[in-house]
Amino acid sequence: MDKLKKRILQDGKCFEGGILKVDSFINHQMDPTLMSDIGKEFAERFAAVKPNKIMTIEASGIAPAIMTGYFMKLPVVFAKKKSPKTMQNALTTTVRSFTKNREYEVVISKDFLTPDDRILFIDDFLAYGNAAVGIIDLIEQAGAQLVGMGFVIEKEFQEGRKLLESKGAEIESLAIIENLENGKIQLK
Amino acid sequence: MDKLKKRILQDGKCFEGGILKVDSFINHQMDPTLMSDIGKEFAERFAAVKPNKIMTIEASGIAPAIMTGYFMKLPVVFAKKKSPKTMQNALTTTVRSFTKNREYEVVISKDFLTPDDRILFIDDFLAYGNAAVGIIDLIEQAGAQLVGMGFVIEKEFQEGRKLLESKGAEIESLAIIENLENGKIQLK
Repeated sequence: MDKLKKRILQDGKCFEGGILKVDSFINHQMDPTLMSDIGKEFAERFAAVKPNKIMTIEASGIAPAIMTGYFMKLPVVFAKKKSPKTMQNALTTTVRSFTKNREYEVVISKDFLTPDDRILFIDDFLAYGNAAVGIIDLIEQAGAQLVGMGFVIEKEFQEGRKLLESKGAEIESLAIIENLENGKIQLK
Repeated sequence: MDKLKKRILQDGKCFEGGILKVDSFINHQMDPTLMSDIGKEFAERFAAVKPNKIMTIEASGIAPAIMTGYFMKLPVVFAKKKSPKTMQNALTTTVRSFTKNREYEVVISKDFLTPDDRILFIDDFLAYGNAAVGIIDLIEQAGAQLVGMGFVIEKEFQEGRKLLESKGAEIESLAIIENLENGKIQLK
């Protein structure tokens, strides 16, 4: 994903505490052509693990996930950060956000996560891995199988990958940030 | 959008209080092929009003908006329901949700909504029109121009369209529900 890496170097901004802002093209304003390329790339990388469903978490995982689902011709389900009144049969987990220094509940309907499912999880960022761990908990509660995890950007120095590797699923990140020291984006 | 209408009749579910659940293909689990068709349809219907940017609101507006942006080759920005710590120059408005019977704050960065912008707003539902009114308030605060509003599903009996028509922008809904009386979906 050279196009993605170039864009991160060009438009990404570093902030204190290991924060990388990519809100002009990934997670506030979004570039749909780049998102489509991202979806195509994930579809190629994960074809071999044969998922039957894509899962993500609202809100900024939705765009890369729907594009991946489009190219793989698979349904996409997003976990919600609050339980809607009308959701029955919900599975729930708690995620701790380091960036926001708070905990939040994540829910998904059992109707859309079942023991037959082979799940590919897609998200915009892999940082400490907490959101991904929450999603894995939901997948385990449902008796479904995790077959892959795809991240648009991985912040390697926050070591989330270590937490996820024990789960045995393939992990792919399209751009890996080694560090953000001295306000400079160092790509792998 | 015959394909969308057929899908609503086949998979939509009615609940008390005028609630239509389409969470198996629109706003929890999503069908990316249908979303792509929705994006293509919006792109055709709104080509003449020449937007330069698409705006939506998290979370369920993101999928139809990113697909519309893909076909129109335009950036897509989504308003957030909570203000991230790292957002500077935020514009804020308050939206009242009838379905959830609560108010929430909606924010967008001024960096991505400017006086030069011609905005096409895309969302999954037009019900009472409150989310759309909030977005219009943000657009007006920024001094931008609203040129169109596209909704995947309009619940005509909740009369949100009346609230929006005074703004003068073109309104397009791909499927219009006349009523949900007696637990039956009545399409226009």
